Amino acid sequence: MLTISQRGRQMPASPIRKLVPFAEAAKKRGVKVYHLNIGQPDIETPKMALDAVRHFDFKVLEYSHSAGNESYRRKLAGYYHKAAGIEIDYSQILITTGGSEAILFGLMSCLDAGDEIIIPEPFYANYNGFAVAANAVVKPLTSYIETGFALPPIEEFEKLIGPRTRAIMICNPNNPTGYLYSREEMETLKDICLKHDLYLFSDEAYRDFCYSGTHFSAMNLKGADKNVILIDTISKRYSACGGRIGALITRNQDVLDTVMKFAQARLSPPSFAQILGEAAIDLPDNYFDTTRAEYLRRRDVLVDRLNKMPGVFCPNPGGAFYAIARLPVDDTDVFCQWLLESFSYNNQTLMLAPAAGFYGTEGLGKQEVRLAYVLNTEALNRAMDCLEKALQEYPGKTAPKTAASRPQLVRES
Amino acid sequence: MLTISQRGRQMPASPIRKLVPFAEAAKKRGVKVYHLNIGQPDIETPKMALDAVRHFDFKVLEYSHSAGNESYRRKLAGYYHKAAGIEIDYSQILITTGGSEAILFGLMSCLDAGDEIIIPEPFYANYNGFAVAANAVVKPLTSYIETGFALPPIEEFEKLIGPRTRAIMICNPNNPTGYLYSREEMETLKDICLKHDLYLFSDEAYRDFCYSGTHFSAMNLKGADKNVILIDTISKRYSACGGRIGALITRNQDVLDTVMKFAQARLSPPSFAQILGEAAIDLPDNYFDTTRAEYLRRRDVLVDRLNKMPGVFCPNPGGAFYAIARLPVDDTDVFCQWLLESFSYNNQTLMLAPAAGFYGTEGLGKQEVRLAYVLNTEALNRAMDCLEKALQEYPGKTAPKTAASRPQLVRES
Repeated sequence: MLTISQRGRQMPASPIRKLVPFAEAAKKRGVKVYHLNIGQPDIETPKMALDAVRHFDFKVLEYSHSAGNESYRRKLAGYYHKAAGIEIDYSQILITTGGSEAILFGLMSCLDAGDEIIIPEPFYANYNGFAVAANAVVKPLTSYIETGFALPPIEEFEKLIGPRTRAIMICNPNNPTGYLYSREEMETLKDICLKHDLYLFSDEAYRDFCYSGTHFSAMNLKGADKNVILIDTISKRYSACGGRIGALITRNQDVLDTVMKFAQARLSPPSFAQILGEAAIDLPDNYFDTTRAEYLRRRDVLVDRLNKMPGVFCPNPGGAFYAIARLPVDDTDVFCQWLLESFSYNNQTLMLAPAAGFYGTEGLGKQEVRLAYVLNTEALNRAMDCLEKALQEYPGKTAPKTAASRPQLVRES
Repeated sequence: MLTISQRGRQMPASPIRKLVPFAEAAKKRGVKVYHLNIGQPDIETPKMALDAVRHFDFKVLEYSHSAGNESYRRKLAGYYHKAAGIEIDYSQILITTGGSEAILFGLMSCLDAGDEIIIPEPFYANYNGFAVAANAVVKPLTSYIETGFALPPIEEFEKLIGPRTRAIMICNPNNPTGYLYSREEMETLKDICLKHDLYLFSDEAYRDFCYSGTHFSAMNLKGADKNVILIDTISKRYSACGGRIGALITRNQDVLDTVMKFAQARLSPPSFAQILGEAAIDLPDNYFDTTRAEYLRRRDVLVDRLNKMPGVFCPNPGGAFYAIARLPVDDTDVFCQWLLESFSYNNQTLMLAPAAGFYGTEGLGKQEVRLAYVLNTEALNRAMDCLEKALQEYPGKTAPKTAASRPQLVRES
């Protein structure tokens, strides 16, 4: 018998994918669907960066260097210095095919089959996929909506650390929670990693999207040069998701040398979008001001509208463009399907991501959804109108909580 | 102690990479280096395909579908029908980030840690890398220069097949040998795979580059729909290596579904080069005639020149743009370094790939080199002038074989 590998069977399917046919069916019925389920920004890719691709002048689309074009890596080193105060040499930057490949190569270089990585949950669902691909084991450490998904206390980490633990991974600011880790929390993570000889994978894909507080990069932790592996991408920064350009950055030469071997096997990252990434570094310093102001407006509309709905609770995210909300329903998997299959308001509905798919622990997140605020405020308001109506109509709802019984945020993130 | 994974340590470094500093030093001394060591074609990427990228009209560089753009996949299905008589539905095509990713996803979907894959050696060195990444074990099956690297006999395969054997992988026409498998050899492979329930990974990256004989695709083997997994790429076909667009094609729905989960985790293949690949399908039917004729001329110059050198033997490759030659030297690792470090002729030298890196069996290929005929005939002739002189001067040579003692080709490939 031909068989599929265990790994292939364990590989998680996209938690949102099962809803796609219901969204397509709704659209076929003529219902407008507001997509708050995916992290595809609607912001235009900077024209000057797209133009750089339009105006390439080579005649042969050659392999680039396996680590990416040297000119791009040199400019990136300058960018990190200027944008985030990160001091690195260009040789410490490896250009990857999206942040995805950086995570995969990082895990493969540092973890063997059966080795463990601790990730605060809820977490970006594809971390699970990369871990399965690398035969590594994710140990989820629960963070809670009541505290706005703050970093769990150090004792909780230490309970999970065993002989096979090799790394901790965070996403900062966080997808799916929007949580922005404080400097103190980052220092706590450093201490844990130094004490237990763990790698710290820091996925900073949304570094430019911080609204409350300042981003503190893991690369700026002192005395943890060997531990820290930064995962970056241009996907969100420049609204260039389809380019598939990311980076793995570390001062640990052994890790760099090892990742480079994986990079050589796949030959090179995509050439066209490296041109785009390199050009975008020359964007004016205030380029993000407009984008950030737009996302801030959206966040405020979304969170305000959500918290005004009876029984809904949504902590205020400090960064990224996601929020997790708790809804007064039994099971958001069922509710999200019902929204697409059985509900419409003025011939409109919305698609949300059930949050259970972002938890590693079975049974958690069943009342939560992730919302990506990648629509303009007008569309967001219409989507919130739909949600408000839907919650009134939905038969599977739990008893709504009163405002008084809502959990209090420990810390405004 | 922070440690690098076993897998990371096992990951092979590029067999050519160690020579790169010597090539760079030669160039710094003002020596012209002819690069016959890499598979980067010098043929121009079709202008109409590059123009399609120049003229894209989107404003947001979005993720594509995880399986690639549907429009591209539909056109590709038509292309395979027309170009290779392969009948497939577009849903059986998954666009990948280069052929590299197709191999990795295929191995991960079908093999678990410790599972074995038989590959006739010498083979494309990066197969080793993908196998290590997937924790799979390569079982090399030696093919010999004396027979032009023909498929080893069926009994040799069966000696290697054990309880952990899951697949056979071939590259047809072959990198690094240039060998073009006959229809009979493909049928033999099918029989082995059916008898022992093995997947057949067929890497057909060089399908368009056949000079002697006709290419017979594994997808056209009857009765092996579940077994055959085709690996393809646009890198060589359209001289579009930097685009990083490949494909995994199979009629095995379980494999497709599993590979799709890996594809979803990494979100999407690069968008820009999908535009290029889709446009290139509209190239005129005779597009390859010119390219093929050019490579044929190059092959003839290369093989003729090599076989005229005392003690050199080079079987005539039937396809791709590589040849393996046996040189009258002790160790081509040393010889290739010497060419760059200590030799020049009219201030010119050449860079070759020592063939030991293409063998999985330790100690094989030490007298062989791989030559990529990716230079025009004039440059090739100059490179051959250098090699001829070098072999006369080289101190580490073995006793040259006479023409009479040269092995005879069993079959003209």
